[in-house]
Amino acid sequence: MDSISVSEVTVIGRTHLGFMHSFRQPFSGVPMSPKFCSSRVEGPRAISSSDTNTKSQFAYGERIAATSSDSGYKINGVNLKSRTLISSVKEGLLLDANDDAYGGVIVDPEKLPSLMMFCGFLQEGFEYHHAEKGYVMLTYWIPEEEPSMLPANASHQVGVGGFVLNQHKEVLVVQEKYCAPSITGLWKLPTGFINESEEIFSGAVREVKEETGVDTEFLEVIAFRHAHNVAFEKSDLFFICMLRPLSDKIIIDSLEIKAAKWMPLVEFVEQPMIREDKMFQRVIEICEARLSHRYCGLSPHQLVSTFDGKPSSLYYNVVDDDHDPSNSNCNTDFL
Amino acid sequence: MDSISVSEVTVIGRTHLGFMHSFRQPFSGVPMSPKFCSSRVEGPRAISSSDTNTKSQFAYGERIAATSSDSGYKINGVNLKSRTLISSVKEGLLLDANDDAYGGVIVDPEKLPSLMMFCGFLQEGFEYHHAEKGYVMLTYWIPEEEPSMLPANASHQVGVGGFVLNQHKEVLVVQEKYCAPSITGLWKLPTGFINESEEIFSGAVREVKEETGVDTEFLEVIAFRHAHNVAFEKSDLFFICMLRPLSDKIIIDSLEIKAAKWMPLVEFVEQPMIREDKMFQRVIEICEARLSHRYCGLSPHQLVSTFDGKPSSLYYNVVDDDHDPSNSNCNTDFL
Repeated sequence: MDSISVSEVTVIGRTHLGFMHSFRQPFSGVPMSPKFCSSRVEGPRAISSSDTNTKSQFAYGERIAATSSDSGYKINGVNLKSRTLISSVKEGLLLDANDDAYGGVIVDPEKLPSLMMFCGFLQEGFEYHHAEKGYVMLTYWIPEEEPSMLPANASHQVGVGGFVLNQHKEVLVVQEKYCAPSITGLWKLPTGFINESEEIFSGAVREVKEETGVDTEFLEVIAFRHAHNVAFEKSDLFFICMLRPLSDKIIIDSLEIKAAKWMPLVEFVEQPMIREDKMFQRVIEICEARLSHRYCGLSPHQLVSTFDGKPSSLYYNVVDDDHDPSNSNCNTDFL
Repeated sequence: MDSISVSEVTVIGRTHLGFMHSFRQPFSGVPMSPKFCSSRVEGPRAISSSDTNTKSQFAYGERIAATSSDSGYKINGVNLKSRTLISSVKEGLLLDANDDAYGGVIVDPEKLPSLMMFCGFLQEGFEYHHAEKGYVMLTYWIPEEEPSMLPANASHQVGVGGFVLNQHKEVLVVQEKYCAPSITGLWKLPTGFINESEEIFSGAVREVKEETGVDTEFLEVIAFRHAHNVAFEKSDLFFICMLRPLSDKIIIDSLEIKAAKWMPLVEFVEQPMIREDKMFQRVIEICEARLSHRYCGLSPHQLVSTFDGKPSSLYYNVVDDDHDPSNSNCNTDFL
């Protein structure tokens, strides 16, 4: 990135009824109900996300907003696809823009003034919403009498840990290269963050493979941990996954891992750090209960919901449709 | 925020061994192993997070980095507390800074040049990492021969849905004010995002209370859904929660909700949109199985792990320690 420009800035605003009426009517009979709208202004990606080319011009200096037709992701009750531009800052200047599919606008980044406009938005009271490689989003909520209804920035990181046990009741463990002095020398389960848009089940298999070289098959999420104020004050969801080993040869990732091995489960549990850790104790009890069919974890099922048409994974455990209690635990044998 | 300044900018870099040695030795015998370090430079909050006042000066124009003692959050295998400053951009200029607890530095924002330095970082090849109200973080990964090991930005939003059934086998449902035309008129479960640092179990209770006015008690997460490219291209984790009603009077949130009511479960399931939705069908089967003890969801247990000392919630279902299969489903009666 050579310099920051408004082509890297996104502006979100709640539609302003006063302007909306006079402004929207000529274009479309959009309902007058107030609602959240947003527009990313960041060059090709957003431009191409606009699927209409109706040219329109925006006198900016006034706050002008395009409302939105209801659409988009609904399962969490927030409309995340509708778009608008609140143009602010300098008087009199004109912005070229194209209407988008949601009654919003996509501004041609070529036509935007650069650095000063970015600062102008901040001076006007816009706030950072979020940033990713290549752009930063600014937001402004117009109605003073109402709390902001803009959807929040991503709030969580998602981690996975792999519990891999072989036929000899040995668990796959690693020693990390960079760890708190307090846990130096501890043999622990392979763990890591899942990648962008990665599934929990494939992320767990990948992390185990990367750190230890061992191929595995995903079985179940047996528990998950929710903690707060972790990375950059964000929250953390950590999924403990049971995996079945498909190979046993260990090849460690020397960047992150100091050592890896197959360790007898009894020995693993006997480590002082583990013995003194209530959470870890519980996790191991759960794994052992699962191995002897006294516990049932959640397995992923690929389902598309017509609510948003998105292919997704629904994690749940077996449903016993025969009313047979002996059926009510997972029957898959893990050993 | 009146203007953007480096007091709102954070710079992260991987320690540069060449400089690290000559630079760090005078201060502490930090191991020479390369590792991830970071430092937020954003005024009072970060300044006060520094717990040492050793003054030091940085000739900037060179890339200077402080390495880190291992510490901090380990469960996902990334050290998120260690800090460093890569100072870059202008030649010759000096920055006042204080060492922090992790071998990094906190720069006095009062002493920083503002806007041009921000742009300077971008011109130097720094990239946006993430932004929150009040600051934007820039990162730079020095080693060209190695992939970046900086932890990623938060990747997920977390939503909750509340399945609330009363003694008359009526489920608590709402109609949303702003929804896709395709689901207009649909009676659905109350849903929403959890707030920053909020628990799933309290978020579900809050959302139901906000949307419908009904008080509930959290029982179990019975399933969760993982979907991708949802809000701002982030992923979404949606937890379906069973709640027990503690009151029945309905008072709707007129901002988000058009209507709410207690609807006979049979009627709810008979809605065409629900009948045609495989995922929703499955979720309702699970809820019904749970009600008749043929299914077991996950309930939260407050546990502190010595790995990071964080109080957190571990979600798991009952472990039958008596090897009694009839014990292996959750025994709590929900009706």
